[in-house]
This record gives sequence, structure tokens and C-alpha cells, in this order.
Amino acid sequence: MKLAVYQGTGDFLDKMANLARMDRLAATAVRQGASLLMLPEIYLSGYNLGDDCARMAEPADGASAREAARIAKHHGIALLYGYAERDGDAIYNSILLVGADGKPLANYRKVHLFGPEEKRLFEPGKDYVMATLNGLTIGLAICYDVEFPEFIRTLALKGADLIAVPTCLTPPYWEIPTSILRARAYENQIFLAYANHSGAERELSYIGMSAIVGPDGKDIQRAGSEGEALLVAEIDPAAYAESRALNTYLADRRPALYGAVAAAGATTTQSPPQKRTAIARRQRRRR
Amino acid sequence: MKLAVYQGTGDFLDKMANLARMDRLAATAVRQGASLLMLPEIYLSGYNLGDDCARMAEPADGASAREAARIAKHHGIALLYGYAERDGDAIYNSILLVGADGKPLANYRKVHLFGPEEKRLFEPGKDYVMATLNGLTIGLAICYDVEFPEFIRTLALKGADLIAVPTCLTPPYWEIPTSILRARAYENQIFLAYANHSGAERELSYIGMSAIVGPDGKDIQRAGSEGEALLVAEIDPAAYAESRALNTYLADRRPALYGAVAAAGATTTQSPPQKRTAIARRQRRRR
Repeated sequence: MKLAVYQGTGDFLDKMANLARMDRLAATAVRQGASLLMLPEIYLSGYNLGDDCARMAEPADGASAREAARIAKHHGIALLYGYAERDGDAIYNSILLVGADGKPLANYRKVHLFGPEEKRLFEPGKDYVMATLNGLTIGLAICYDVEFPEFIRTLALKGADLIAVPTCLTPPYWEIPTSILRARAYENQIFLAYANHSGAERELSYIGMSAIVGPDGKDIQRAGSEGEALLVAEIDPAAYAESRALNTYLADRRPALYGAVAAAGATTTQSPPQKRTAIARRQRRRR
Repeated sequence: MKLAVYQGTGDFLDKMANLARMDRLAATAVRQGASLLMLPEIYLSGYNLGDDCARMAEPADGASAREAARIAKHHGIALLYGYAERDGDAIYNSILLVGADGKPLANYRKVHLFGPEEKRLFEPGKDYVMATLNGLTIGLAICYDVEFPEFIRTLALKGADLIAVPTCLTPPYWEIPTSILRARAYENQIFLAYANHSGAERELSYIGMSAIVGPDGKDIQRAGSEGEALLVAEIDPAAYAESRALNTYLADRRPALYGAVAAAGATTTQSPPQKRTAIARRQRRRR
């Protein structure tokens, strides 16, 4: 399956304009043979919503989702895009996967919220979500989620061939699109796709560096830190059979030793909680 | 605490020569202010033992351990080195941590054995091991262990400030000393030290690239892929308080979602077991 990953600067707070761009991008991606077009975190309205979050939020089957379904069906391509999701009084940082027939395949709500602003605006999701598309098993994640190795391992253990990660990453987090992405792909022997914003929204700027990384931990496609890009790559697990055979991580695990990873209330002595809390208020970046 | 990491080519199958080198290196490390000297995996006899493994193996309190204790006490420096450990009929791939007073502080037996040859020669260890040295909490790991994010996460959750990883890494595994090490340090906000062999033993060659990586995921010291090196760096968690405050991974985890990581018999649909087993016979590298 060919995957297209979009990096760019959306029209902030203008969902209609962003849906129109989605329409144009879907046409371009189809011309390049892609079966799935992936867009960044909260692509629909822009990420840095602040107090505009509530009015930008829509249900998973709202007007924008219906327009995205029309676009998918019209072009015959699956779409994965981020949006602020309203469900009753709750708002989630979500991504919706729409099939090429316009039918919704999966809706995932970010489980690892980043920093005080995301925690103020969103409820955390309650579970991971997997989807199947064109014979591939896709694990869904959003931005900060990918930085937790135990979360991506969980998706890999559930059979993911590809982890799709719409994101919104700012300076100074350069280690994440490089070392962290490559390690996640390699240590699980899976594909990893990362679609970031570029440009700026209000006081936040974004660092691009969107990528499609192979199971061997090497970049297949990599965008720069600025500007617009449409990365296209074939996602074919069979092409990495040799790498998977050489790196049998999932078979060589010792689960009986990892109890602490899944234990409730696991703590660390690294630094005292009160200090972490105090310093957390200084966190500037959103993702 | 200042840490010294040795990379080099030992005298294969000559434990006396390797202990003599340990003595010289301890003197050099002390002159550079180090409190701990770390040496590679199975440094004592060389790694690629094959059928010489049984005759090279010694108890954790054997003659070589007594000589290492004398060296530590004589120079006033703690030592961490790899050796083939005999315990009754069992042989383990182990590392011994000796205090600057010559007393043993910890003995760790590799829990993730790599490939058919290690599984033929060694019994797997049964548990992780932590140690305290000069106020630092050290998590112990050997080579392949560090490639399992859930294992290093476990050590971090148990309070590790530093993960010490004597190793023996061959081509083509270049992603491991680069992306994987940096990701492990960053995602846990801990120091990571990696001491590899260089040169060759029988048919195996080793790729060096030993390193000390900081909690910000950046190299503090890095050796080349060939030759001898003694890397020295200050291990001071307080110097990385800002990085730890910006990256509150341990506090932001969602353990209730990670049950699969610690579940017995967790499987994957990535590729069928019979295929993995067949291809595993072709694994060439040891580590």
C-alpha cells in the first residue's frame, strides 16, 4: 500500500479552507498512487486553539467528517486527519480514519496528553485503537503518544505493521523526529509515519521533519523543518522480511520481568513529584 | 561521579593479560578522576568463546574476581566488567560490579540472550539488578538487553539514574549504538553508558561506537568504530534538571493501557513463528 504523508501550514481556525486543501491533497496523493493520505494533529482547525477549542470541536460524525467522507469517496482514497472532537461535554484530541468508500474505519482519542494546556483543553482517551486497511494493520497514535515506548510496543504486540502518528511538534524537541522515531520503528520492526505541521500558529512554531521510517530504523522519506511536503512511500512489510528475521525482538521478550511497566502507581525516585509539578508549569511547547 | 568507559580489543582467551590491562586502565581512569571504570561484555576472556566457554567460565567469587577486587582496592576505583560466570552446572553471561574497596556490589546475569549461539552457551538470567554507587542508582544491562525498551523502562521506574551496558556488537547493527541508545536515554531521561569491543575475535568483528549519552538524548562522549578509547564523563543528574522537567515521561505514563507488555505469552501477528525460527538459524551476529 502506498502512503502519502502531508506536512504543511494550515489555515488557522478555518475548517472550510482546510477541508478544501484536503480535497486538493487527496487528488495529488491519488495521482501518486497513494491509498491513504495522512494529515497532522488537529489538522482540521489548526492545533494551537486555546479558548477557541470548544467552538472548533465537532462530533466524530459532524459536518466536517461528512465532508471528509465525501472527499475520500470522490477520490477513492482513505484519509487520516486530526481534529478536536466533541462528545457531549467532553472534548478530545482525536484522529479519524475514513475509508476510500467514505465510511469511518476508526476514531482514536489521544491517551497521552502533553503539558498543562492540552490537559486543560482535552479529556484523555481511554484506550488504544487499531485499524485494518488494504490488508495492513495500523496502530493509531498522536504526537506525544509515540514517545512512550510501552505504548507503541503495545500496538506492535497487537499486530501493527504501521504506526500512524499525526503530530504537532515545536522546538526544542529535535530528538523526537530523529532518534525516537527511528528507535520505535527499529525496536518493533514496523513502519512509522509522522505527519507534523510546519510554520506557526499564534505564539507556537512547528518544526516539520515529518517522516516515513522503515522497520530497519532508516528514513524512507523525510521532510525538512520548514515548508510544505507530501511524502509518498510503499508500505510493504514483506520487503523487510530480512530485517525482521535479524531482529526478533517480539519473540525474545521476557514479559515476566516487565511487570513494573504496567503496574498502577509505578513511581520513580528520579526527582520529587512536587519539583516536577512546579517545573511543569514552565513547559512551553505543545504537542 | 566521573565514569570511565573502555573500548578496545582484548587478549582473546587470556584472562591474565586482560586482568593486567584492567590494572593499567584502572590507573589511567583514576588519573582522570573517574570513580567507576566500565569494560565490555565478557571482557575477561573475550566474547566469542564457542566451545571454550565452559573452561573460561568462573564463579562470581573466583580467582579472577579476587584479582579484580585487588585492582579496585589498590587503585581505589569501582569496576564493572563482563565475564562468563559458572554457578554449578550453569553458565551465565554476567557482569560484576566491584566497589572501590574491593567488595562486590552486584552481579547481573544477562536476561535477553541473543541468537542461537548465546542460547546454546548460556542460561538466561532470572531478574534485573540495580546497584548504588556514590549516591547514583545504576541499572545493569548487557548488550541485547538495551534494545528492549520495556526492560530499560523497568530499570528507570526502579529509580536508575544511569544504565550501564557492557556490550559486544557486530555489523550490521549500526542503529543500536546511535538511534536506540539515544532514544533509551531520552525517553527515560537517564544517562546511558555503552562499552563495546573493537577489533575481531575469530570470525566476528566488532563495531566500537561506545558512548556515554545524556538524559537529553545527546552524545556526551562517543568513540569511533575502530581502535581503543577511554571515554570519561561526569554523571550528574542535577545538570539535566531542565531536560527532565521538560520531558516528564515517567509522570505522564498510562500504565493501565500497557498490560500487553507484561502479559505472559503475548504474541504478534507480524510474521508466523515457523518462519522466524527458520530464518533465525541464519543469524550471524553475536551480541
